[in-house]
Amino acid sequence: MGMIIVMGVPGAGKSTVLKNTAAKGRQILNYGDLMFEIAQKKFNVKHRDEIRKLDIKSQSQIQSLVAKKLAAEKRSIILDTHCSVNTPRGYLPGLPFSLLSRLKVDGLVLITAPMAEILARRRKDMEGSAGRVRELDEEGLVAHEGINRAYLAAYSSFTGAPACIIINRDGGLSAACEKLSSLL
Amino acid sequence: MGMIIVMGVPGAGKSTVLKNTAAKGRQILNYGDLMFEIAQKKFNVKHRDEIRKLDIKSQSQIQSLVAKKLAAEKRSIILDTHCSVNTPRGYLPGLPFSLLSRLKVDGLVLITAPMAEILARRRKDMEGSAGRVRELDEEGLVAHEGINRAYLAAYSSFTGAPACIIINRDGGLSAACEKLSSLL
Amino acid sequence: MGMIIVMGVPGAGKSTVLKNTAAKGRQILNYGDLMFEIAQKKFNVKHRDEIRKLDIKSQSQIQSLVAKKLAAEKRSIILDTHCSVNTPRGYLPGLPFSLLSRLKVDGLVLITAPMAEILARRRKDMEGSAGRVRELDEEGLVAHEGINRAYLAAYSSFTGAPACIIINRDGGLSAACEKLSSLL
Repeated sequence: MGMIIVMGVPGAGKSTVLKNTAAKGRQILNYGDLMFEIAQKKFNVKHRDEIRKLDIKSQSQIQSLVAKKLAAEKRSIILDTHCSVNTPRGYLPGLPFSLLSRLKVDGLVLITAPMAEILARRRKDMEGSAGRVRELDEEGLVAHEGINRAYLAAYSSFTGAPACIIINRDGGLSAACEKLSSLL
Repeated sequence: MGMIIVMGVPGAGKSTVLKNTAAKGRQILNYGDLMFEIAQKKFNVKHRDEIRKLDIKSQSQIQSLVAKKLAAEKRSIILDTHCSVNTPRGYLPGLPFSLLSRLKVDGLVLITAPMAEILARRRKDMEGSAGRVRELDEEGLVAHEGINRAYLAAYSSFTGAPACIIINRDGGLSAACEKLSSLL
Repeated sequence: MGMIIVMGVPGAGKSTVLKNTAAKGRQILNYGDLMFEIAQKKFNVKHRDEIRKLDIKSQSQIQSLVAKKLAAEKRSIILDTHCSVNTPRGYLPGLPFSLLSRLKVDGLVLITAPMAEILARRRKDMEGSAGRVRELDEEGLVAHEGINRAYLAAYSSFTGAPACIIINRDGGLSAACEKLSSLL
């Protein structure tokens, strides 16, 4: 069985949806966690934020080791990752073809929500945790969401896997979880 | 000469445009028909709807045989297919790279129309034929049309072929047909 | 060091931004110039407009020679080109995968601006130069800008390079140039 890849911008509620979905025996792996594990071992990194401060070559090496690990997975996996990450250098693809070419993908899922709800959740997140800085600019969010759908279509064209967009509205968590569960 | 691939959501008027366009010696092949022919022979399928009820492995095998058949075509072809199909598992790419890599493509055409006109045509279709169920939700159609353009750009980037969007407005059928004919 | 590829529709202000950006030792190469140089030598072409009047096979040959030249570049390059070109046959990808597969790309940049400002700049351009005909239709521009972002995501997925969208607003040229300079 191939993996199901679940993506979504901060505030879309990806983690909440994943936590509340019956996983049907699938193992949830978080791409960022896998990177951190390897960065700790290989580069003695102490905090997640240090990864992006490593030189490009080291970061590529970490990504390549994560790809190798994922390619070797024998279990049924849900991969929790980003469709694209909004960095100072631009949108970085979460699933470049160099990674996808090593994976067997059965489904691509983008979790999203109405823009106003995403922004409200981000505001609340930042109140709750002083360290968490999240983009609150609506124009920027609309652009990011727009290009994420284009990345999604590119990933789907490359893998041949279906691309499912799940709307996780306020008050609609259980519907979003049921939809995700139906894909597993 | 490579093939011209014509795509469009239900209600965009793809079939009507194709029927009324001077084909300039090109043969029109319908992807769904090709799948059905093979499914009949190989899997004893009686109705089109049975194809998607086959297991994934059988469906892949049918798709692979269609690709083989198209790759072997010596005639000038217009391929009539979907940009993506809106299934319960998500948008399924009509032209995954595994298929495109076997074809010689000279042009990609997406036929579309104003959203309100597409919805009105779908409503009329359903009245005319009790068996035909078509999505009438505007938000869903806007999302599908949006991601279809992203699929189109991915197909165009992969093949290098130009991507032409033809607007088939109510009352503008002959203009749409002329435009398509100019690409053949 | 890989190349930075800068793209943008006519009127987005790509050339102005490039002219006013500290290039940090990078060489700016214009894709159209490279095509013209080769077309002059190989096909005795006198004016740029003659290139697209050549048969498809000759045009492909020119593109292939440009790709070869770019692939052999030892210098740090900024490549100035189009994301897609709006031709009578449809949108032609500026960076088909057949080209990208031969390049080492560190960054993809799309320069854009509010639609009303792009149209106003185009109108002004046409007044200034009788020979320059530019599309002034807003619906067409919105469609082109929309699909350009989808091409951008496809290029980014293929190369793994980040995709940066720089908004070059009226009165904001220096901010756009600073942003571009930060990517070099």
